[in-house]
Order: sequence, then C-alpha cells, then structure tokens
Amino acid sequence: MTAPDVPDATEHAIHEICTRAREASRALATASRSVKDTALLRIAAALEESTDRIVRANAEDLARGRAGGLNAGLLDRLRLDRARIAAIAQSVREVVGLPDPVGEVVRGSTLPNGLRLRQVRVPMGVVGMIYEARPNVTVDAAVLALKSGNAAVLRGGSAAVASNTAIVEVLRGALTDSDLPADAISSIDAWGRPGALCLMRARGLVDLLVPRGGAGLIRTVVENSVVPVIETGTGNCHVYVDASADPAQAVSIILNAKTRRVSVCNAAETLLVHRDAVEAFLPAALKALHEAGVALHVDSRAAQAADRAEVPTDPATDDDWATEYLAPELAVGVVNSLDEAVAHIRRWSSGHSEAICTKDLAAAQSFTAQVDSAVVYVNASTAFTDGGEFGLGAEIGISTQKLHARGPMGLQELTSTKWVVTGDGHVRP
Amino acid sequence: MTAPDVPDATEHAIHEICTRAREASRALATASRSVKDTALLRIAAALEESTDRIVRANAEDLARGRAGGLNAGLLDRLRLDRARIAAIAQSVREVVGLPDPVGEVVRGSTLPNGLRLRQVRVPMGVVGMIYEARPNVTVDAAVLALKSGNAAVLRGGSAAVASNTAIVEVLRGALTDSDLPADAISSIDAWGRPGALCLMRARGLVDLLVPRGGAGLIRTVVENSVVPVIETGTGNCHVYVDASADPAQAVSIILNAKTRRVSVCNAAETLLVHRDAVEAFLPAALKALHEAGVALHVDSRAAQAADRAEVPTDPATDDDWATEYLAPELAVGVVNSLDEAVAHIRRWSSGHSEAICTKDLAAAQSFTAQVDSAVVYVNASTAFTDGGEFGLGAEIGISTQKLHARGPMGLQELTSTKWVVTGDGHVRP
Repeated sequence: MTAPDVPDATEHAIHEICTRAREASRALATASRSVKDTALLRIAAALEESTDRIVRANAEDLARGRAGGLNAGLLDRLRLDRARIAAIAQSVREVVGLPDPVGEVVRGSTLPNGLRLRQVRVPMGVVGMIYEARPNVTVDAAVLALKSGNAAVLRGGSAAVASNTAIVEVLRGALTDSDLPADAISSIDAWGRPGALCLMRARGLVDLLVPRGGAGLIRTVVENSVVPVIETGTGNCHVYVDASADPAQAVSIILNAKTRRVSVCNAAETLLVHRDAVEAFLPAALKALHEAGVALHVDSRAAQAADRAEVPTDPATDDDWATEYLAPELAVGVVNSLDEAVAHIRRWSSGHSEAICTKDLAAAQSFTAQVDSAVVYVNASTAFTDGGEFGLGAEIGISTQKLHARGPMGLQELTSTKWVVTGDGHVRP
Repeated sequence: MTAPDVPDATEHAIHEICTRAREASRALATASRSVKDTALLRIAAALEESTDRIVRANAEDLARGRAGGLNAGLLDRLRLDRARIAAIAQSVREVVGLPDPVGEVVRGSTLPNGLRLRQVRVPMGVVGMIYEARPNVTVDAAVLALKSGNAAVLRGGSAAVASNTAIVEVLRGALTDSDLPADAISSIDAWGRPGALCLMRARGLVDLLVPRGGAGLIRTVVENSVVPVIETGTGNCHVYVDASADPAQAVSIILNAKTRRVSVCNAAETLLVHRDAVEAFLPAALKALHEAGVALHVDSRAAQAADRAEVPTDPATDDDWATEYLAPELAVGVVNSLDEAVAHIRRWSSGHSEAICTKDLAAAQSFTAQVDSAVVYVNASTAFTDGGEFGLGAEIGISTQKLHARGPMGLQELTSTKWVVTGDGHVRP
C-alpha cells in the first residue's frame, strides 16, 4: 500500500500512528460508558485549565493567517478566545450526557433451529478526520469518536496547526490521567499533505475517513482514498413554492432558509416557483429578499415579477443553478409544474436538503417521494438540517452520500454492527 | 471523471448505460411492491420459457472454458442446465415473497417545536455488481436490486459472457412486458475490463458497487473505484476451542465448519486450541479431520497431539495462518490463553466469522466482545454465516467491511434512508 510521492519516513510515521491508534481502539471498544464519560469530563476540565496555552498557540496561527492574507471570515473561524474555549469545554460535557450507542441491540431473533442471533452496535475502530481551519472541530471530532468507542486520527488545516497541536496535546494529556490510552487521539498535522495522503491509503488500519470542508477537499479525499469514506457537506439546497402554497408562509421559509446564516451548507441557494404561485408570492418574496441584502439571479419569468416589485436582479445562468453560493445570493426560477421543479432539483441539487411549500397533500407526497436528497421538507426551512436540531445530540458532519449514513451524522453513524450468534453445539446440515 | 487507458467510445457507452439506469431507477424508486413483484414473477416465467436459449448460450461458454483449460470446479460453477434454471426461477419466486424494504420507517419523532421527523428507507438508486463466472449471480443480483427498488448494472466474468448476455436479454424482455423500464437491468459485459473500470469511476451515476469474487477482484475494485464500494467475501475464519469446551461438541463444530463445503467463504481455515483442551480434544479432532480428508498444517504443540493420534501433518508457517485455503486443508495451533487466541485472530483474520467452543460464560463474553469480526459464534459452526440461514431471505454477498453493511447482506442492505420532515411553516430561530 504505497502512496505515490510520499517520503518513506512520512509513510512509516503515519503507519506507526495508525497502528497505535488501532491498539488504542481495542481498549476503547470494550470500555464501559462510565470510563469513557469520565475521560470526557477530564478532557473538558483540561481544556479549561489549558486556556492560556491554547490561546497563545492560536495567536501564532492568527498572526500567520493575517500575514498570509486570510480574510476576516476565515480569521474568525480560526480564532479561539477564553469564551470560545469555555463553550467548547461545555459542548464536551454535553456529549457526556448523550447515550452510548455501543452495545445497542439493533436486531435479534431466535432461529427455528434454536440459534440466538443478536446484531449489536460496535465502534468502527479507527476514524480519520480531515478538515479545514476550524480548531473547534479538533475537539468535536475527538470527543465524538471517543464517546462512540473509536480512536481518532486527526488532520486539521495547516492554518490552524499551532492551535491543533496544542489542543491535541491537552486532550492526550487528559487521557493520560484517565483509564483510556492517550493514543485514542492523535494528530498527523506535522506530516502535512503527504501525511494526509498516507492516511487516505492506510487500508486495514483506518476503518472510516470523514472529510469535512469545501468541495475541493472532499474531492481530493474521495479520489485518493482506499479506506471507506463518508462525504459530507456540499449543500446546493432548493426551496420550491407550489401552486397551493400559503404565500406569507412561503416568504418566511425562503427568507429563513436563505438569510439565517448564508455560509452554512443547509442554506437555500435556489428558489423555484410554480407559475400559478408567481403573482401572489414572488414579488413579495423578491422584495423581502432584496431588503434582506440578497442579490437575485433570475430567469426571464422571475425577472418580470422582480420588475413589478421594483427589485434589481441579473439573469440566471446554468452557473447559478449549479452554484452553492454560501453568500447572500439566490438563484430564482419559475416552473410550469411540480414535476418540472423535481427535474430541476434532480439535475442541479447536491442531494443535501430541499423543501416544498404547499397546502396540497398530493403535492407534498409527490415531492417527498420523488426528490432524492438526504432531507426533504414540507412547509419548513432547510435550516433545520443539523444533528442538534434533529435531536441526535451532536453532529460529526452532514452526509450527502447514500452509503451508511445520510443527512446529519451523530454518534450512531460512527458505529458499525457485529452479529453475535449463540448455539448449543449447532452445526449446519 | 476520465479513467486511464480506457477508449473514449467505451467511456461514452458505459456513461450512456449508467445514465439510462439512473433514469430507470427513478421509476423503480416510486414503484409499489405489487408492481415490482409482478415484474419478478414475469422474470421467473421468462427464465423458464427461455431455458433452451440460455442452455445453448451456456454451452458456448462451457466449450470455450474446456478449450481454455478451466478446471472441473469452475466448469461446474459455470454450468446451467434445465434443472438449475428451474431452481433459479424458483429462487426468483422466493424473492417475491420477501417483504419490500422500501418505505420502512426506521426512526421517527415529533420535535419539541412540532416538526415531524421520519427516517424512511429508500432505494440506493443504481447498484453496480462486478462478479466472476457464475451466471446464477446475474439473476440473483438483478432481482435483489429490483425488489429493493434499485437499477442494476452488471459486469460478469468473461468466461460466462454468452450465458450472461442471454440471461440479461431474457430479464430485460420480461421487464418490457411489465410496468417497469427494461433499463432497470443492464449488462456491460460487452465492454470488457475497460468497461468495468468506467463503472468503478461513474461517480454521480452509480450509488453503490458490490464486487463479488476472489481477493484479486475485490482488491482491483477497491483500488480503482471512486464510487462507494462494499467489500464482500474473503473468509479466513477461525474456530477456537477453549479450555472448558465440550470435546465432542467441539469436534463436531470444527468438522462441520471445515468440511461441510470447503470452497465457501464461511468455511473454517484455522483451528486454535487452548493448551488445557489439547489432551481431551485435539487428538480426536485431528483424527476425525484426517479421516474426512483434511490436510493438517500444525504448530509444534499440535504436532505432538497429532503424533499421539498417529495422524500425518506438516509444519504450519505464517503463510498457513494467512491463507484462506478454500480447500480441504486446515491450520492448527495451540495457544496458552483465550487472549492469545484473540491476538492470533486479530493478526490473521479477514474479519468474516469466528467461533469459540466453551462452557464458560466469562470466556464466551470475552471472546464475543474482543473479536472484531462480522459474525462471532459461541458453540456453533461458522457455516451458518449466510443470509438465508440468518433469515434475511436472500443474500447479495457477505460484507467484511464495517461501513453500511457487515455480515450477510439482504435486501435492507441495498437501501439507504431519507429524512422526511413536515412542518407548518417552521423556520429556525
């Protein structure tokens, strides 16, 4: 399993780290909930006790980021201060309160021949995470992995390397004071991109790799990995306003889905409107969106409605239908039917979240049956696609693939299952 | 998404087939159980009606196989006669009787804010299967995909190309007489290995790829795929006889696990014996295995027991511990403890099926908790690892990976889920 263009020393180092993680994962797999929760509480306390050290390391990253011309948004994501570290410690304590998915009996039966079958939830083993410059993800990923009985091997963005290094040292130090091995949490940041490439190729040592970040990162991981991957994130989300929609309700849903937070994957990027809903809904909607600061890219029929509402727009192109803006911009189109809306979504959606606004039961049924996305809403904002909102308690990412996990991924999605079969000397005829 | 070393015309053709399959999958996804079952019954009848044609095509493959020097075992797997086709048609009718996994509500709740959440089982979409020269797998894969609402794109071994071509024509013909599109079932056999490579790279068109065959095939698929893959098959299975085992019961279990069918993935390949069980168990076991025609590769302590039983053996090497013989051969070792057996299994097992023979509850608990394989048995033969035996009704393969499906894969494992969320104008604060 040699990776191209990777120095032997790097390959050796990553192999060593993953092997230690694998050893640690065996202790984690059979650790009781109370042992894991005690370790998590120790981690929360250690983060608070080490606030000054983490803030100092983060200041290095911030200074390097400013010098390198990182924009204000990225610098804000990178920043850790006393309050943010306290919030992170608090979120660790919330994970303590979540049920342990390990050991849950998913299915079970006694076969006619008397064999007793149980399908039991077990940890994945070693979970790799590759993510971008948000140091809070380092803690999130490590504690969710640990709670679900997995060892974590972390690769954060180079912009946050000092912060991540400090945090991982704190986390490992906390484990040293617990009944779990420190190797349950490791970082490979010191080995840069070649190290990440080795992680993607550590077949037999890494059971699951979760990339979290932009489309480019995810693409790289999918293309290069020979370990199983769960894709997360890209959200080109649609709101469709049906002929029968309540216009005022539909306006509040598209406003919320578009403007609540524009930089997140569950934000709406395209509004589709049934032609029979245009008059009652679209001018008011475009006016409200414009007043909320949203730039509008519209097809020809939507342009007419915009003119009536005296709202400035520019023409939508295929690029607009394809784009996840993550910005205060929205593509708007008029369709002749629900089926045309479904066809548009099939062509352009990334399969994350889509919503229909309708009062018609058959329309709701047809839309939810035909739209093949992780989450399909009826009369609700796409902004709800979130592990916390869904009551999953925590979120490791939002899967846009169909294998293993789809939609918000909580602790359960970090587990596999094992069949345990008990007999009395059973042999198969 | 260009594949290396693949002619443009092949890439275009596979892309076209997968696109048609994708279109067909949309009709399948919303098809009712009765429509799917009616199509399956049509398929069963068409297979019987076309027996002569299929047998003729199969005769071509057999002649070519004999000329090419295929061994008797492979020729037998390739052979289709009237009785085997009748059996295949019967197995299709059994799939009709299985419940439809699509539409099952996996989880659901009403959130504090009144949003109604349902996680509903939905088809994967387009399922690719790459397998070796067993034409019955062509029917199996197609009907299990269809029953679970998926379109199937099939790539069988070149040795069975005439049989598979005839079968796929019969299946597609049967669909033409049903309410489902013929493109729900396609073959890419005509495009050979380059076609298979395109299938592995048809990201966005193929939702799941299941390789079924030898370790080499599976390796190739995992290395080259950028679509999600479920690995199946390799079974280096272990039976561990604990100090407390009932010797006679343990002999019958290892005999069954080793000799019931030696060519299948759930057959035992290594026997590990606690040193305290050697005297009561091992000479008798080795004698029985020898008499059943099993060649024995033994470590030094097992060799002493073999000498006492006057059974010929040869010394086991690391190659023996690593090998999935799929033949009447068995590696045999003596261990000092249950933990040593677990360590051996961790090092050498492929994660398929392992068994402990014991009367001790703590030993059973420790073994099932520590052994990280798809199926772990207590006092039962590994030969039970099979979708039919587990009551799953049908089997598309046995997954040895941890993502999405582990162990025998039935219809449920060919599905994904979708969250359907219904509100009354809900927006997120």
